[in-house]
Amino acid sequence: MAKRAYPLGKVYALLEPGPVLLLATAGQDRPNVMTLSWQMPMEFEPPRVGIVLSDRDYSHGLLKASRECSLNIPTAELIDQVVAVGNCSGRDTDKFRACGLTPRPARLVAAPLVRECYASLECRVADTRMVNRYGLFVLEVVQAWVDTAVKAPRTLHHRGRGVFMVAGEVIRTASRMQ
Amino acid sequence: MAKRAYPLGKVYALLEPGPVLLLATAGQDRPNVMTLSWQMPMEFEPPRVGIVLSDRDYSHGLLKASRECSLNIPTAELIDQVVAVGNCSGRDTDKFRACGLTPRPARLVAAPLVRECYASLECRVADTRMVNRYGLFVLEVVQAWVDTAVKAPRTLHHRGRGVFMVAGEVIRTASRMQ
Repeated sequence: MAKRAYPLGKVYALLEPGPVLLLATAGQDRPNVMTLSWQMPMEFEPPRVGIVLSDRDYSHGLLKASRECSLNIPTAELIDQVVAVGNCSGRDTDKFRACGLTPRPARLVAAPLVRECYASLECRVADTRMVNRYGLFVLEVVQAWVDTAVKAPRTLHHRGRGVFMVAGEVIRTASRMQ
Repeated sequence: MAKRAYPLGKVYALLEPGPVLLLATAGQDRPNVMTLSWQMPMEFEPPRVGIVLSDRDYSHGLLKASRECSLNIPTAELIDQVVAVGNCSGRDTDKFRACGLTPRPARLVAAPLVRECYASLECRVADTRMVNRYGLFVLEVVQAWVDTAVKAPRTLHHRGRGVFMVAGEVIRTASRMQ
């Protein structure tokens, strides 16, 4: 994927349609990666993103400790890797290796980026006050990378219990919504 | 739309794919409705949902005052109504009437449901501590209604600036993710 630096002010629009994400963290011994769907934009610029992680997820502790992660957006051709990532734990597995994904160095954070994804967002944890109660981390996106050759990304959207919807037809309207 | 009572434990899966929502509130003189895409599940059961509303949105004040709303999920045939709702304000407009939508009484909350939507969730505000800082309301869904005849809802997903993606192909996998 030939990703280029992408304007931070446009990041919300990558997340707003609700794609499944791959969240990557730096670990003590090796990096880790998990699937994540409970995410939403919270601010346009600087871009803030809310994510909810169960404290049973291995990445929850890694994110709390390192305070950095990357959010990576896979497309439909990565469905097998996404399912594989969701079906094992970083506690006992090198998930990047086991699931056929490639960690790449980020620019501003220690967490790796996922090379195979068409978009990658480098994030720092901006607020942990809702972590204990809700598992809610507020992230700030500090650097974004997008393969802008991908015009209509066939993102994956989880409908629960392993059923995914793939992004379909595009409608352009005269909406004045940002 | 022939909507029926729907199990609360399955509500997260309606929201997790990231559809555009119509948020309806009871107003002093008339009900109001707005479009909303910054939403995510926060808990399976009882279902909690996080939503972010700008304090410039008229509904922000109505929700803060009434502490109740409905979240309604439109499908692609409602694109004109969704765009119309996004392009006017309840400050000076009866948006239900102006946009061709029908308010229907809810069971447990004073906010109306949107009849034309295939799913409607009755919600109470559960936590306002992040409203001033982030515009984040934590809602609890107390009653859900779904037209279960709609098997693969062609939901709308906003990519920013009036560009919508329509839910496409479905992939069933052996994922063990909930």
